Amino acid sequence: MSKQIYKPRPVTGFPEWLPEVRLVEQRWMDHIRRTFESYGFCSIETPSIEELDVLRAKGEVDKEIYVIERLHKDENEKGDTRLALHFDQTVPLARYVAQHFNELDFPFKRYQMQKVWRGERPQAGRFREFYQCDIDVIGVDNVPIHFDSELAAIMVDILRGLNIGPFQMQISNRKILMGLCAGMGIEDPTPVTRAVDKIEKIGKDETKKLLIDAGLSNDNAQKILTFATIKTTDTSFVGQVIDLGVNNETLAQGLAELASVMDHLAHVETGFVVADLSIVRGLDYYTGTVYETKLLENPGFGSICSGGRYEDLAGSYINKHLPGVGISIGLSRLFDYMRINNKLDIKAKCPTDILVCLPNEDKRALTNETARILRAKGYNVETYHADQKIKKQLGYAEKKGIPFVWFPPFEEGQPHEVKDMTTGDQSQADPNTWEK
Amino acid sequence: MSKQIYKPRPVTGFPEWLPEVRLVEQRWMDHIRRTFESYGFCSIETPSIEELDVLRAKGEVDKEIYVIERLHKDENEKGDTRLALHFDQTVPLARYVAQHFNELDFPFKRYQMQKVWRGERPQAGRFREFYQCDIDVIGVDNVPIHFDSELAAIMVDILRGLNIGPFQMQISNRKILMGLCAGMGIEDPTPVTRAVDKIEKIGKDETKKLLIDAGLSNDNAQKILTFATIKTTDTSFVGQVIDLGVNNETLAQGLAELASVMDHLAHVETGFVVADLSIVRGLDYYTGTVYETKLLENPGFGSICSGGRYEDLAGSYINKHLPGVGISIGLSRLFDYMRINNKLDIKAKCPTDILVCLPNEDKRALTNETARILRAKGYNVETYHADQKIKKQLGYAEKKGIPFVWFPPFEEGQPHEVKDMTTGDQSQADPNTWEK
Repeated sequence: MSKQIYKPRPVTGFPEWLPEVRLVEQRWMDHIRRTFESYGFCSIETPSIEELDVLRAKGEVDKEIYVIERLHKDENEKGDTRLALHFDQTVPLARYVAQHFNELDFPFKRYQMQKVWRGERPQAGRFREFYQCDIDVIGVDNVPIHFDSELAAIMVDILRGLNIGPFQMQISNRKILMGLCAGMGIEDPTPVTRAVDKIEKIGKDETKKLLIDAGLSNDNAQKILTFATIKTTDTSFVGQVIDLGVNNETLAQGLAELASVMDHLAHVETGFVVADLSIVRGLDYYTGTVYETKLLENPGFGSICSGGRYEDLAGSYINKHLPGVGISIGLSRLFDYMRINNKLDIKAKCPTDILVCLPNEDKRALTNETARILRAKGYNVETYHADQKIKKQLGYAEKKGIPFVWFPPFEEGQPHEVKDMTTGDQSQADPNTWEK
Repeated sequence: MSKQIYKPRPVTGFPEWLPEVRLVEQRWMDHIRRTFESYGFCSIETPSIEELDVLRAKGEVDKEIYVIERLHKDENEKGDTRLALHFDQTVPLARYVAQHFNELDFPFKRYQMQKVWRGERPQAGRFREFYQCDIDVIGVDNVPIHFDSELAAIMVDILRGLNIGPFQMQISNRKILMGLCAGMGIEDPTPVTRAVDKIEKIGKDETKKLLIDAGLSNDNAQKILTFATIKTTDTSFVGQVIDLGVNNETLAQGLAELASVMDHLAHVETGFVVADLSIVRGLDYYTGTVYETKLLENPGFGSICSGGRYEDLAGSYINKHLPGVGISIGLSRLFDYMRINNKLDIKAKCPTDILVCLPNEDKRALTNETARILRAKGYNVETYHADQKIKKQLGYAEKKGIPFVWFPPFEEGQPHEVKDMTTGDQSQADPNTWEK
């Protein structure tokens, strides 16, 4: 062959899986979607592409944006609206809610599972295209605190079903630390928030230094440290905070909200959810409940599922007060971590339940008809594609991980038989009545 | 509010649906996926983005390509590999098969349902982002003809389940016309193919003119016209072609292949599939079986599901002979047509089966517990979010199209009750045993 061959290479940051891995990814996504829907949330899907001005309506974006452009653009297109790939699902949600405000029902309970893109420089372990699974409730003027516990319950349901090993969701409420600072006379809570955010990474001593540097008295710094180590599986954190002896209305409100959330999560098995007052989330966006979730076997991996309550979803696009609460799973990152660590339950290379053998080419109609009967009963059924030795057909089933092989009668009057590839058992069977 | 508001507008060519429409789109996609899997095909998903050189490895592309670029690119990135959004799923499939050749099992039976992008100038009715649903079988050196009928059967199963009204899949085989031309001594079959391709649009007389213009004798032109109007629901097209009195090996092979395909589609209810020898598909890519599918109520809408057999999938990327056969549904285009014509079966604004009422805020735990019991039985269950009058809660269910409303006991010792929103009937029920 004299033909020019362009040998394709994987492009860093754009993951793609072999069929056996993709099958597990589909199981994950199906489970996540089913759980979202089991709580009555509806799906929306927004275009992958937004106007660049929409993405930047809130101001400069710290995420790397990919802009898109027609390869063969005309000269006069220079002034056209610039388009870009969305870098998250929150900005598109805000735009969607603003644009369709009059056609939506509130509280608007939606989930969204799409790819997002970040224009990162290529580097190992950093995805430039990945799936995110977001769930949010948006209200007009208010969103009942009930949803703050419901979203946590949903995410615990989801993560327990993914077989990712032990994990823990940590919940706090930003009003507590804000109120505590105000009650302690600390004017600017930002450096305190930053210090508390780092406590798990840098330890107590370093955190205390940061607090002293921020101008806190030794006494106040100690109080903040004590505060940041409060972690309870029930509502007993309330008493521990009250013991700090600080009085403030915002503080009291935050405690009441977090207590309500923990109360309504009492049905969740102990250990999956804790009130952890060191959780502040970096983003200024959040104003109440905040969530993070850690893999207990590798807390250093960072949060696998985070979110919180915000006051203003779509103020950049519509003159309405639209608060909300939401949580997001960075699906691709978590999935790839499990994949790399061989923790995916990989079973087969195809979704097939049964391979129906082809006795010989003249029996194609019989093979097809047998497959149709089994398919109508809900099974995924392949027919063997070529007139080849049965040994070869069995080998095909084995290689692809197909659990059952079906033998239609090779001679008139003989019975059908089915072989269980796991046990090796083979027995007579009727396609109309057989059950797996 | 003095804040700057950026009022979002829909961007032409990037469709997005309200939740009630999205629910139907999800039903469509679930049905398509389930059908693909019921025949044992595996899913793959390729990145949305490929190297521009991969997309153009076969030569210039007639589709409009969107290239992507980091918004904040560094000076030294100019020489980097250019990236672009894929414009179909065939080029990515070819690249995938070449790249993972040693890890795949052949015949490789895959489906793929992703968004693709075309960098069109904005214009009404032309999508710039849309879903395609592709199914292909790739072989090494050969692909049994069995798959040509199987793919047609799969697509008929799919389209029948979508409730899109009457449709017909037209199947032919390019070898037939190629062989006919060769047997008739026509050296360049291209103008003949082009003329036959147009017969439905321009009629017999105009087609004949084109054939005469291409240098055919009146007799030969008449033969081609007779040929192009052959359309049979069984294999009787074979006799009709033989009656034309042309002998050629390729012709005979094409007839045998198409006869085999029609034979193995004999189980499909009459009318859904026809052998239609006017079908040639414009693309030179196809070498054997070709498929098109028309909505019988609006044939002018064009083909909703097309494809065929090709000789060389991935020769641009790997030095292997990889023939295949595939069909594709342009999902978004068909879905939007049904949407615009009010033919979507829109039922509800959410996937919820049951809304569990909140008697009052003190009963939140009871409402949640009732919902958990019903959810564990497989239902999608919302709990009402606020302590509001029952009338308002019923109104919420009605507005969102939720079919059942559940009333936990308002007083200790009372029974649960459930209201069927369709019939208005309300009766006592036990959440542990109730069935829809």
